[in-house]
Amino acid sequence: MKRRNFIKNASLTALGVTVFGIMDSYSKSTGFFNNLKVNGKRIETRIFELAKFGLDEKGHGTRVAYTKADIEGRAWFIELMKKAGLDPTIDTAGNIIGKRKGKNNSLKPICFGSHIDMVPDGGNYDGTLGSIAALEVMEILNENNMITEHPLELIIFSNEEGGTIGSKSMVGDITTEGLKQKSQSGLSMGEGIKAIGGNPENIQTYIRKKRDIHAWLELHIEQGGILEKENIQIGVVEGIVGIVHWEVTIEGFANHAGATQMNMRQDALLAASKFIIAVNEVITSVKGTQVGTVGKIAVQPGAYNVIPGKVIMGLEIRDLSAEKIEMLFKQIENRAAAIAKESKTKINFARQANESKPALTDKKLQQTIKTTAKALGFTTKLMQSGAGHDTQHIGAIAPAAMIFIPSIGGISHSPKEFSKAVDMENGANVLLQTILSIDKTS
Amino acid sequence: MKRRNFIKNASLTALGVTVFGIMDSYSKSTGFFNNLKVNGKRIETRIFELAKFGLDEKGHGTRVAYTKADIEGRAWFIELMKKAGLDPTIDTAGNIIGKRKGKNNSLKPICFGSHIDMVPDGGNYDGTLGSIAALEVMEILNENNMITEHPLELIIFSNEEGGTIGSKSMVGDITTEGLKQKSQSGLSMGEGIKAIGGNPENIQTYIRKKRDIHAWLELHIEQGGILEKENIQIGVVEGIVGIVHWEVTIEGFANHAGATQMNMRQDALLAASKFIIAVNEVITSVKGTQVGTVGKIAVQPGAYNVIPGKVIMGLEIRDLSAEKIEMLFKQIENRAAAIAKESKTKINFARQANESKPALTDKKLQQTIKTTAKALGFTTKLMQSGAGHDTQHIGAIAPAAMIFIPSIGGISHSPKEFSKAVDMENGANVLLQTILSIDKTS
Repeated sequence: MKRRNFIKNASLTALGVTVFGIMDSYSKSTGFFNNLKVNGKRIETRIFELAKFGLDEKGHGTRVAYTKADIEGRAWFIELMKKAGLDPTIDTAGNIIGKRKGKNNSLKPICFGSHIDMVPDGGNYDGTLGSIAALEVMEILNENNMITEHPLELIIFSNEEGGTIGSKSMVGDITTEGLKQKSQSGLSMGEGIKAIGGNPENIQTYIRKKRDIHAWLELHIEQGGILEKENIQIGVVEGIVGIVHWEVTIEGFANHAGATQMNMRQDALLAASKFIIAVNEVITSVKGTQVGTVGKIAVQPGAYNVIPGKVIMGLEIRDLSAEKIEMLFKQIENRAAAIAKESKTKINFARQANESKPALTDKKLQQTIKTTAKALGFTTKLMQSGAGHDTQHIGAIAPAAMIFIPSIGGISHSPKEFSKAVDMENGANVLLQTILSIDKTS
Repeated sequence: MKRRNFIKNASLTALGVTVFGIMDSYSKSTGFFNNLKVNGKRIETRIFELAKFGLDEKGHGTRVAYTKADIEGRAWFIELMKKAGLDPTIDTAGNIIGKRKGKNNSLKPICFGSHIDMVPDGGNYDGTLGSIAALEVMEILNENNMITEHPLELIIFSNEEGGTIGSKSMVGDITTEGLKQKSQSGLSMGEGIKAIGGNPENIQTYIRKKRDIHAWLELHIEQGGILEKENIQIGVVEGIVGIVHWEVTIEGFANHAGATQMNMRQDALLAASKFIIAVNEVITSVKGTQVGTVGKIAVQPGAYNVIPGKVIMGLEIRDLSAEKIEMLFKQIENRAAAIAKESKTKINFARQANESKPALTDKKLQQTIKTTAKALGFTTKLMQSGAGHDTQHIGAIAPAAMIFIPSIGGISHSPKEFSKAVDMENGANVLLQTILSIDKTS
């Protein structure tokens, strides 16, 4: 299948070369970029080797940052980096950084990687794929004695799942106050960073300055079901969505569920039900990839025989456009006002402080990934990332981009998370060739 | 207002006498039953005196059965019963029983009363009114030196709010196993009964046999808003609704709320919202006074950023007809099947063991209450009790009935529970005259 594509897309490759002019030297010498290809088997083997750290007897994996499983997984990874000659070090925030010299070490480094920590009862691919594929790139270059122009850096960010702590630290977004916050390991962020060999007291000393990095690339599983559904091999991420949370409170009137006739009720849960459906209708009424979710709900007093007097819900809206989020919320507010009136309840919204702004990826890098993937014979789709990633923070100081591969069933943060070996291999090849392409840019 | 009604309804009274022939002696001697009227001021004063037991500094009352407040409230009540010469005793289940001799003590007693325990943060009228009005009846008879044919019994049932424990015990529906169950006081039912002077080891010894009691009457606040809304003074309870509970489980699929597009979700909470609305639609689609409530809901995993994978709800249906409950549930099941299909979820129902069957009150007693109330000049309405009461258990061994008075706003089990003094007085007068009427029956 892949070989057939290679042949079929030879003309596309030539087109890529002609139009973008960034792969000239490779295309002239090899007729097709270069002969480098990642070792898909090795990637797959290592995915399962890393999965052993934090695996319980029921086959569920929990490699939460700063825990024993995380520390052991990191040690395993560091050992591989050493074998690959990457001279790994740990920065103040606990990020693991492996370096490979380039021909011209005064050039800014090309950085790539991901994370290897995992949510509780999580999957084997989220973060792990991007980390192992990054190592694979380094090893393929080693095995082929290829030295890039730019120096290369493999970065494994610490505690991505607990709030992208490592990447935030690298761009100066973690305060001393933030280090006091409790992490999912039970330790504070500061204690956790210390446990994995970081230096929280000097967290500010490893901040990378703006334009310190030539480019940042992260390969990741999609965590959605679009690529699989549309049978597309490579997702080119145009941006990471902004996220806004509101706590929604509905006040009705708690009353005896037996003695209060249906037409005399102010049922906060019935109003909440109409609200949840309205959210779904508003979000799906507009073209686009926006998502809106009511993921949590609590009812008071919460008994079989009492009409719900109060409901508290969590509303989340995500989109690549901050304006669209506001527009959708406005519509939800209007629907809520109508529901409140009709159900004789009060509906209030409390916008939460933790919102994250949409982060667009670098347009040139998007284009390079797309051209590279097409040249490799893969179908591509420009898409958003609905999930947050370290890339959104690094994007603040460097051109940054992401490569997605299909997630089967769109399942993530679950033991059922799965990506096919062939898709992982494809993604790693796109990562490798994209790095080689941008190495030719200055 | 009341006096005007008295005059206006003189003919009705005569009709009552003629048709039912049960008030002959009274109507002949006084022209209107008898001259007895309760002391409304005393009832109101005692409502507020009893309310002090369990009252916190914020004005919220919590007189949960078996707690200090309950024990103190009972002591206050027992003292009043002693003063009224009722020689109060406590049965094995902790029920307080005060007796007043009749002219013919071989006749079966006419029993009446209610309960004085309270739900947490409850109201001052639920149970309390019926208890204080019953005592008022005894005192009015004392003050007027009137001896009834039948002996009279004032019964204050123990722990009504925690499962009508006292009345269930009296009819033999409490097992030794049931006494191990935890009560809201923190004590087991058995320990609680002991704390209020009962004898749980011999709980079976005070069971009243079938036809031991001439009649049972309970005056109570409506706890709904129908009487107030329709401006009716006296509710004649035709029965106490049956109650069935189902635990409803909806299984969808928990997934990343950012990465999973709207059309790829199996959102259990969105399906639950449609279900809750469907319950409301089914219940209100049929004529009648049936009620259906979803009063509790829990969602898993329950986070802003995770699509709900599982929802567990409590569904309750109440009606006077067991067949109607089944018919409505069948319709809800059908709606649920359609929702499950459309939302790609699974919906399951687990019928709970605690269901209570509808309990119709005694038709003759209903008629006597209605005639008595009308003769006193009050508007009446035949209605159901949506709430459970001790009367439903006593109804299994004796002719039993209930008299309702309006609850302002239909609010109950709340500090906002309120009934007007005039309505309480009306209700107590109906209780008094009904007792005197049925005293003439054998």
